[in-house]
Amino acid sequence: MSKKNMIVGQSGGPTAVINSSLYGVVSEGLRHPEEIGQVYGMVNGIEGFLNDTILDFQEALPGEKLDLLKITPGAYLGSCRYKLPESLEDPVYPRLFEKFAELNIGWFFYIGGNDSMDTVSKLSRYAQKTGSDIRVIGEPKTIDNDLVHTDHTPGFGSAAKYVASTVREIILDANVYEKKSVTIIEIMGRHAGWLTAASALARKYPGDNPLMIYLPETSFDTESFLEKVQAGFEKNCNVVVCVSEGIHDDKGTFICEYDNSVGTDSFGHKMLAGCGKYLENLVRSRLGVKARSVEFNVSQRCSASMLSATDQQEAAAAGCFGVQAALKGETGKMVSFIRKETKDGSYQMECGLEDVNDICNAEKTVPRQWINEDGTDVTDEFIAYARPLIQGKVDVPLGEDGLPAFVYRK
Amino acid sequence: MSKKNMIVGQSGGPTAVINSSLYGVVSEGLRHPEEIGQVYGMVNGIEGFLNDTILDFQEALPGEKLDLLKITPGAYLGSCRYKLPESLEDPVYPRLFEKFAELNIGWFFYIGGNDSMDTVSKLSRYAQKTGSDIRVIGEPKTIDNDLVHTDHTPGFGSAAKYVASTVREIILDANVYEKKSVTIIEIMGRHAGWLTAASALARKYPGDNPLMIYLPETSFDTESFLEKVQAGFEKNCNVVVCVSEGIHDDKGTFICEYDNSVGTDSFGHKMLAGCGKYLENLVRSRLGVKARSVEFNVSQRCSASMLSATDQQEAAAAGCFGVQAALKGETGKMVSFIRKETKDGSYQMECGLEDVNDICNAEKTVPRQWINEDGTDVTDEFIAYARPLIQGKVDVPLGEDGLPAFVYRK
Repeated sequence: MSKKNMIVGQSGGPTAVINSSLYGVVSEGLRHPEEIGQVYGMVNGIEGFLNDTILDFQEALPGEKLDLLKITPGAYLGSCRYKLPESLEDPVYPRLFEKFAELNIGWFFYIGGNDSMDTVSKLSRYAQKTGSDIRVIGEPKTIDNDLVHTDHTPGFGSAAKYVASTVREIILDANVYEKKSVTIIEIMGRHAGWLTAASALARKYPGDNPLMIYLPETSFDTESFLEKVQAGFEKNCNVVVCVSEGIHDDKGTFICEYDNSVGTDSFGHKMLAGCGKYLENLVRSRLGVKARSVEFNVSQRCSASMLSATDQQEAAAAGCFGVQAALKGETGKMVSFIRKETKDGSYQMECGLEDVNDICNAEKTVPRQWINEDGTDVTDEFIAYARPLIQGKVDVPLGEDGLPAFVYRK
Repeated sequence: MSKKNMIVGQSGGPTAVINSSLYGVVSEGLRHPEEIGQVYGMVNGIEGFLNDTILDFQEALPGEKLDLLKITPGAYLGSCRYKLPESLEDPVYPRLFEKFAELNIGWFFYIGGNDSMDTVSKLSRYAQKTGSDIRVIGEPKTIDNDLVHTDHTPGFGSAAKYVASTVREIILDANVYEKKSVTIIEIMGRHAGWLTAASALARKYPGDNPLMIYLPETSFDTESFLEKVQAGFEKNCNVVVCVSEGIHDDKGTFICEYDNSVGTDSFGHKMLAGCGKYLENLVRSRLGVKARSVEFNVSQRCSASMLSATDQQEAAAAGCFGVQAALKGETGKMVSFIRKETKDGSYQMECGLEDVNDICNAEKTVPRQWINEDGTDVTDEFIAYARPLIQGKVDVPLGEDGLPAFVYRK
């Protein structure tokens, strides 16, 4: 096979280490000049590529500048939420592959979650159908940790560490006063509760806050919740509760939709408050105690302040592994993580490959046996699973302005 | 004067460095065994002291454990919001001073903001009135930076650094997509906009986001805001705007109160949404673009992830200075910061003392000349003032659990 160029893109929501995956792909690509010519990036994913917005990494991030990707959150290349048509007969496919041919692309890497793996699936199937020798590889990414056939996903470890450490700080903040108070923390996760479950890592001793943790994997019962809060005051006058944004009742109604009078703004548009705000109001009105809610919001996915070294290294390693796999002729695969059994029980991870078609339309939730019987906490099995993923510290260098020296795309 | 014991308390809301101030007071106290006997802490401030909840630092945090205070956010001793009666004839004063006598207290230190300085004022005036030789010293603390007669307050630098770095991360997150979007970031500060002003430090180049910054020091006009957002799209398709929670219109009505249909919950209690949520809805409905809002909430005051080394060192230095001043016989004073003029323009700070009575009932807001004419940004003078306060990195050690090794009170 003659020398070809490679291209890499990012898609879906950003994470703290999606750029570490990018670093892994690009740096490994540059390490094989005998097989790989130019290393291109598509700006704003496949949608941007269709509009010819690409960059050359050796121009954009020469030399050591590339290293800064590892500490920069967000998606350096920009992202998109563009879904390729289901029918491979759609004219967008020949258009894409003509562009690949023009740029002499032989290797295509796409970093993202479920929807991005759908893109990898379609492109690899179209390549196979048309006899193109382009290798198409998916690199996993999501804070939600909801991809199947992989032990976990890059991005989850750092998001989990952010959640656990921020919950620990909020516990300290809540403990300052001796008056009864309830703090509701709302954490991302509409269908999968992995990230909310990570709040259990914040506990410093058995019985520490958060006293309750509610995931979308089980039904949420308002009255039982209020009873538990009331009972919690016997342990701690400051009760901290963590909830997934996607908690719902046994009929499947999201708790954030419970109150149809959450209100409309002065233009008649519905004001949406999260379930945290709803529960805060519920606690205040029903239990008559001080209540507040905190919504973690986008910092869960874009903060570099609590990078997990394990997560960062694994993201970069998965990037490298994907390039090596493509060079060996693999295509239509996603890089996965396989946790090894070790004699001393220490954590060890290996990369593997999975058929991307098995991944793109499935969703992995927290196993029911990792949630306690009444759905108010996670078990020690979850802790044992998650604890290794948040280990290790990353030193984020500060610039002269006193702030993290992130790298920006011009 | 024969050897006496000292006691220290914390009051009001926590900050990232209120425990560094405590470290300064306690470590300096322990350094003077010839004059100072026991070093006590009051648990939950003056209110807890009245209930006899005190601890001995040499038992609670022996040896190097004391050092962990410097990286632990929240208030180690716990806090209170207890206001001493205005009349010094109130029986609580002799009760307090009897307790002081029982414990042989000669030195009293109180770390806090405006309200805490009110406590310092009353206790020192009562001591003077009754001929007690107890020295009463206030240690400044507030993320709001609103104390008068001091260049700035411990706690502001770290909160400002948290705000600036988190805004920078959210800018990266917002830039990921190429679709028009508006992000409203709501930052603490009901009357003083110092912390919101610090979001200007996030900019990496002139014209970078946040495109607009609104403080409570000027009036907020909704129509003008919408026009500015619309105009902002010409510079950047992702517009980020930072607002103080306390922004208000020219009649003094808070923007968060604008919409009287923000709604009531199902129990008839009013649901309060912040001004960020209100503006998010306004932008979406009036401009028809994607909008989101982020409320920084308590992490601004309790996150150790973005400690400013300058802030941390100054907090500890102010703590030491207060103890030294008390040993010299000072009382009824608050430790202040005085910025020195230097030949090379470098930043240099010295501690001073101010009459606590001049401080406890005043509030310092951002000077009008540090805000641009139309009230949508801060000037370079503010940047020059604030930039030195966020400098320097603090290494927060992680424990075996992978999370910051904060010290807890048992």
